[in-house]
Amino acid sequence: MDLFEAIKERRSCRDFLNEPVDNETLFKILEIATWAPSPLNLQPWEFIIVRDQVTRENIYNEALRCKNWGQEASGWDWLGKYSVEFLKNVPVMIVVVGDPKKTGLDAFLEEGNVGYQYACAAAIQNIHLAAYSFGLGTLWFTLYDKKNIRKILNIPSEKNPLSIICLGKPATEIHTPKRKDIRSKIIEII
Amino acid sequence: MDLFEAIKERRSCRDFLNEPVDNETLFKILEIATWAPSPLNLQPWEFIIVRDQVTRENIYNEALRCKNWGQEASGWDWLGKYSVEFLKNVPVMIVVVGDPKKTGLDAFLEEGNVGYQYACAAAIQNIHLAAYSFGLGTLWFTLYDKKNIRKILNIPSEKNPLSIICLGKPATEIHTPKRKDIRSKIIEII
Repeated sequence: MDLFEAIKERRSCRDFLNEPVDNETLFKILEIATWAPSPLNLQPWEFIIVRDQVTRENIYNEALRCKNWGQEASGWDWLGKYSVEFLKNVPVMIVVVGDPKKTGLDAFLEEGNVGYQYACAAAIQNIHLAAYSFGLGTLWFTLYDKKNIRKILNIPSEKNPLSIICLGKPATEIHTPKRKDIRSKIIEII
Repeated sequence: MDLFEAIKERRSCRDFLNEPVDNETLFKILEIATWAPSPLNLQPWEFIIVRDQVTRENIYNEALRCKNWGQEASGWDWLGKYSVEFLKNVPVMIVVVGDPKKTGLDAFLEEGNVGYQYACAAAIQNIHLAAYSFGLGTLWFTLYDKKNIRKILNIPSEKNPLSIICLGKPATEIHTPKRKDIRSKIIEII
């Protein structure tokens, strides 16, 4: 698949067909993902593949709890319309777990340890693109408390379950959200 | 260019030819970059294009200061061999500035505000890939104190200059760093 086509046509998907995604495809997507750059090439990512229904329902319950809490904390009424039901139906979740020790000099900088997280985010973008090239839809999901996701998935406290990528065949066509004119995003040329 | 070729063949480049990169190419790369997903499609990225020699030298000096400080703080002697001289010679830097207000519910979560940073990191991965497809090398650079980079570039304190992408024609071929077997990175299938 063409690089620019993948980058521009990938959409965030919240409506999945009830069709399984096999391990072979997932392994290919994840192998591609790990070609992302990382601090000192430390490859700080690990992946948990979740298909089990009880585990997905536990994650759904945590997301629902977090959504309701967030709605109250933010005062954003429109969140009421934002459904997390798709978490029950998505055939696969990929939990991306980052290792804060694999971060290079970032560990010593005052602004906090983000290098390993940036690398994981780059790998996640690769997951989106590779999945799209296999005809799969994805969603970058982060609406949960990490300590609760650690409990559900038995992730040790020193690791960071930084995102969950929902993945499956899209059930519906997804409209293209607009992008701002790039000239408004280039704030200075020095 | 083929998606998988771009993802797998992109290398981190630290040795650039002294050849300019025109705005037209940069605008194309940045336009592609902004097709990354972001929380609530808030598109939290802004870009500063730096070619000016004095500004690049100021950034170099800050990186050198940070490297020397980091070497002392970490006790990593091998950092002495890690040169930041290429910052003086790279034809263009793209400073990626994130807006912490454009982050969705993340702003209310106890783990801190990372959603907008993850989105910027995904856009940065797109920059790497798009630049590679134009025959350009890139480096994801973060070895600086943000407050000093804010001063050098007049970035307001409420914005986050989260990464600098060095960009130009590669002067030398770059070897392919190894990746761990993907089976060692999939820690569980549930």
